Amino acid sequence: MLQWLRQYRRAALAGDAGAGVVVAMMLIPQGMAYALVAGLPPVAGLYASILPPIVYALFGSSMTQSVGPMAIVSLMTGAVIAPLAPAGSGLHAVLAAQLALVAGLVLLLCGILRMGFLASFFSRPVMSGFTVGSALVIAYGQLKPLFGAQLPDYHLPSAALGLGSVVLLVLARRYLSPLLQRCGMAASRAEIASKLGPMLVVLGATGLVWVLGLDTRGVAVTGPVPSGLPQLNLAVSQEHWYALLKPGLLLGFIIFLMSMSAAQTLALKRQEKLVSNQELIGLGAANVASMLSGGMAVTGSLSRSAVNFAAGANTPLASVISAVLLALALVAPTGWLAWLPLPVLAATIIVAVLGMLELDTLRTAWRYDRADALAWAVTCIGVLVLGIEAGVVVGVVLSMGTLIWRASRPHIAVLGRIAGTEHFRNVDRYPAETQPEMLVLRVDANLFFGNMEAVTGRVEDELRTHPTARDLVLVMSAVNSIDTTALFALAELNASLQRRGIGLHLAEVKGPVMDRLRESSLPERLNGKIFLSTAIAADFLHSRKGHS
Amino acid sequence: MLQWLRQYRRAALAGDAGAGVVVAMMLIPQGMAYALVAGLPPVAGLYASILPPIVYALFGSSMTQSVGPMAIVSLMTGAVIAPLAPAGSGLHAVLAAQLALVAGLVLLLCGILRMGFLASFFSRPVMSGFTVGSALVIAYGQLKPLFGAQLPDYHLPSAALGLGSVVLLVLARRYLSPLLQRCGMAASRAEIASKLGPMLVVLGATGLVWVLGLDTRGVAVTGPVPSGLPQLNLAVSQEHWYALLKPGLLLGFIIFLMSMSAAQTLALKRQEKLVSNQELIGLGAANVASMLSGGMAVTGSLSRSAVNFAAGANTPLASVISAVLLALALVAPTGWLAWLPLPVLAATIIVAVLGMLELDTLRTAWRYDRADALAWAVTCIGVLVLGIEAGVVVGVVLSMGTLIWRASRPHIAVLGRIAGTEHFRNVDRYPAETQPEMLVLRVDANLFFGNMEAVTGRVEDELRTHPTARDLVLVMSAVNSIDTTALFALAELNASLQRRGIGLHLAEVKGPVMDRLRESSLPERLNGKIFLSTAIAADFLHSRKGHS
Repeated sequence: MLQWLRQYRRAALAGDAGAGVVVAMMLIPQGMAYALVAGLPPVAGLYASILPPIVYALFGSSMTQSVGPMAIVSLMTGAVIAPLAPAGSGLHAVLAAQLALVAGLVLLLCGILRMGFLASFFSRPVMSGFTVGSALVIAYGQLKPLFGAQLPDYHLPSAALGLGSVVLLVLARRYLSPLLQRCGMAASRAEIASKLGPMLVVLGATGLVWVLGLDTRGVAVTGPVPSGLPQLNLAVSQEHWYALLKPGLLLGFIIFLMSMSAAQTLALKRQEKLVSNQELIGLGAANVASMLSGGMAVTGSLSRSAVNFAAGANTPLASVISAVLLALALVAPTGWLAWLPLPVLAATIIVAVLGMLELDTLRTAWRYDRADALAWAVTCIGVLVLGIEAGVVVGVVLSMGTLIWRASRPHIAVLGRIAGTEHFRNVDRYPAETQPEMLVLRVDANLFFGNMEAVTGRVEDELRTHPTARDLVLVMSAVNSIDTTALFALAELNASLQRRGIGLHLAEVKGPVMDRLRESSLPERLNGKIFLSTAIAADFLHSRKGHS
Repeated sequence: MLQWLRQYRRAALAGDAGAGVVVAMMLIPQGMAYALVAGLPPVAGLYASILPPIVYALFGSSMTQSVGPMAIVSLMTGAVIAPLAPAGSGLHAVLAAQLALVAGLVLLLCGILRMGFLASFFSRPVMSGFTVGSALVIAYGQLKPLFGAQLPDYHLPSAALGLGSVVLLVLARRYLSPLLQRCGMAASRAEIASKLGPMLVVLGATGLVWVLGLDTRGVAVTGPVPSGLPQLNLAVSQEHWYALLKPGLLLGFIIFLMSMSAAQTLALKRQEKLVSNQELIGLGAANVASMLSGGMAVTGSLSRSAVNFAAGANTPLASVISAVLLALALVAPTGWLAWLPLPVLAATIIVAVLGMLELDTLRTAWRYDRADALAWAVTCIGVLVLGIEAGVVVGVVLSMGTLIWRASRPHIAVLGRIAGTEHFRNVDRYPAETQPEMLVLRVDANLFFGNMEAVTGRVEDELRTHPTARDLVLVMSAVNSIDTTALFALAELNASLQRRGIGLHLAEVKGPVMDRLRESSLPERLNGKIFLSTAIAADFLHSRKGHS
């Protein structure tokens, strides 16, 4: 913590300052727009962009993460609060901040309990399907402000402003950087400057509204944005704690997932060490800070963090600088923001989430693993049909489902001896010799609760097809762990085989697995022996048969 | 399906008939008692003991499973319906049947979709903690009927009857079988006869109430039980479908888990093949049948199934016989049941669930694997504090949590060459030689979304401690599968290493894993090569260095 500040070098300052300016310019339209997605007054998004990134800079783990408002987290905030309070009401703002507090406390608790492994509860296909589904929900929700009326109705000046902005933003995204490069700007600078498109469009549109008086002709505008820094907010609704508990848990989980996915991308680029437990603490503290400053739930944003990194950020000082600039913008006169047209904010949201619609993961999964492609599709449809909260649960269930489903099909090979050698190989792949009185099986999976039914079922199947077998040798060379459930299942298999007069033997048990087994009663209760190698087991059992 | 009936042999009949009689004698008190646990009139439990086992006999997979009312499933039914309708009301009975229908349809659907792997979503420690927690909740709920009043109050005649029955039942369980054996009965028969204790106590107590007129002195009794077979029930509450959907899903899951755990125990004893998808169909059909005959949710009961098996059941005909006997009991005059004292039914429930309080799993887990012991305790406490529905969710989350937690700590070894050989071994365990320009890592785990963060993190750590390494060889001998998430992570690791001029090579990739990898673009994009063995990789990379 704060190691970066103690070791700060002057040379890093230029990059940090430049990145801070760029990110602040991104955050002004994004913060206001994502506050609207959450059903909040736009200023809440600006508040959420000041204190939280500073607190994250103190406690977080990533050097270039940009913490602040983020589309999916705002969507979820809006979805959770909508049934509890009317959008735009005072209670809505109180509950949104309170939800950030609950999520923040959940994240802090998980960090203290070192539960960073929670980030692995979503597989990548599920995460991708969830993101695409959420992006579609967000874009759909912006159609009404974009057109100034519920489709198929539309308000012409609003729709013209909104659609015009969408076209400008898409063009800016595609052609601004090449254009600037043709004007002599360096490629990397031009790329970063093109990220300022939304801010420029917002400024231009605001001027247009003011000059043409479009607000008096029915174009919805932001309205007065209070000037000054955020005040300390301690308002909570006592009666809503319970209602916010479960959504707060889910939201905390999503905040962590989104931030980790951004941080992983950055860590790969910077060869940075990612400390997931520290990330939990940083995000938790940032969300508590967001509540205290009257904001809303925040997380690390992949798109903003990538810009931050590309713009030269070296340390979290970049985020601090951007937060200070936002604070200055709020201290300066904010009167002009009153004319900011909502259709244009809707356009910035729609264009921003278009970037989240990546189908590469689905395409790869479709070719590589159909179960993962199915999980992608079901999660995406789950978010669209059941909503984002249920979508999180669907995502976890599908990630775990594909895991358990795969685990329930362990590869198990019948082994035979390659004549004249000590090698035992899969009889389906090699010309290997088996003995009628001995069945040798190799389980190519760790033994745990997810596959023991399949393992014991397969053992019984093989014993049925090898009715003369008096000894069963389980070759454990591919088994790296045995959990408690598997331990019981092995003990029960042992008892069942013993009743039938069939010996159960283990061979090639790995060192760490054997160390653990010694702490159980299985080795002493085992109806057979534990052998160092399969060949030793086979020789011993064969010679014993000769004697008996 | 029905194979057992087509192949039925006369010799099996005696065992089936005997078991049918014994199970029917168990089912009369159990059915009525578990109906009370679910907040239903006792007759609902008897209805649930007639049609469902017959339907299960037609569609189920286990030969000796006894399907019918079961304590935990009844507890969950009661907990789900309680907030929706007052206990004992007509609506309560309608909703309980409707819940069985929802759970039954869920089970049928899962069976058709071949989702039998769902049984592996609970680890054994979690299942045990869940069972113990539920048993405690059930026993606690019976204290009021046992004492005839809310403690510390009590109604003396009720408490005397109730506690007397508890003592009698505990004595019968412990001493009846030895006593009968001393009277010359065969051990196996005596053991089975002792299971009739509850029926005898119920009969005796009913007679006592009738003779002494205890019902007029404030002892609660069952009251009139309608005579005759169950009628076709199609009553549902249209407005409650949605409210029953989620509980129905959870209940279906628990029905399946409970039945599979009983069936697994039986399958081990009988060397029977367990077909989990067929079990889903059988349980689903049985629950739909229970709804149609005005019953409640049913499942396979471990304790009853064990008695059924021990009493000589050979085929599902035993269950059919027991169902027919119960039907006859309902056709015969049922007037005497009106005097059945509720404190005695409470006593049978309490003594029955005492048998579910096993701590052996906790003890083993504590010695063998603390994480599993913790999962046991948290699930048990979760059921006690949050209720049984939330307990199911807690159980799934903990089962998956321990799985992901373990997966997030894969064993990864730095390998070196045993001098003068082709063998590469863990440098921490063997005197193996490493090369400064080459890092060889063996991952002892399947690569999937749960451990890729740990794997890439460890790779980066090792590269930091081996700054001179120009080549990284991943030895894949212990990797049995690579999922889509891991595929992406490997591709990203490859790109990151390429940027740094470090070659990424794979060695000893297993056949099935290589087959899958060929369907992705990883092999062609790989910045290094894929080698058959680690020794070949090391020789090649070393010689290349010599040339460059």
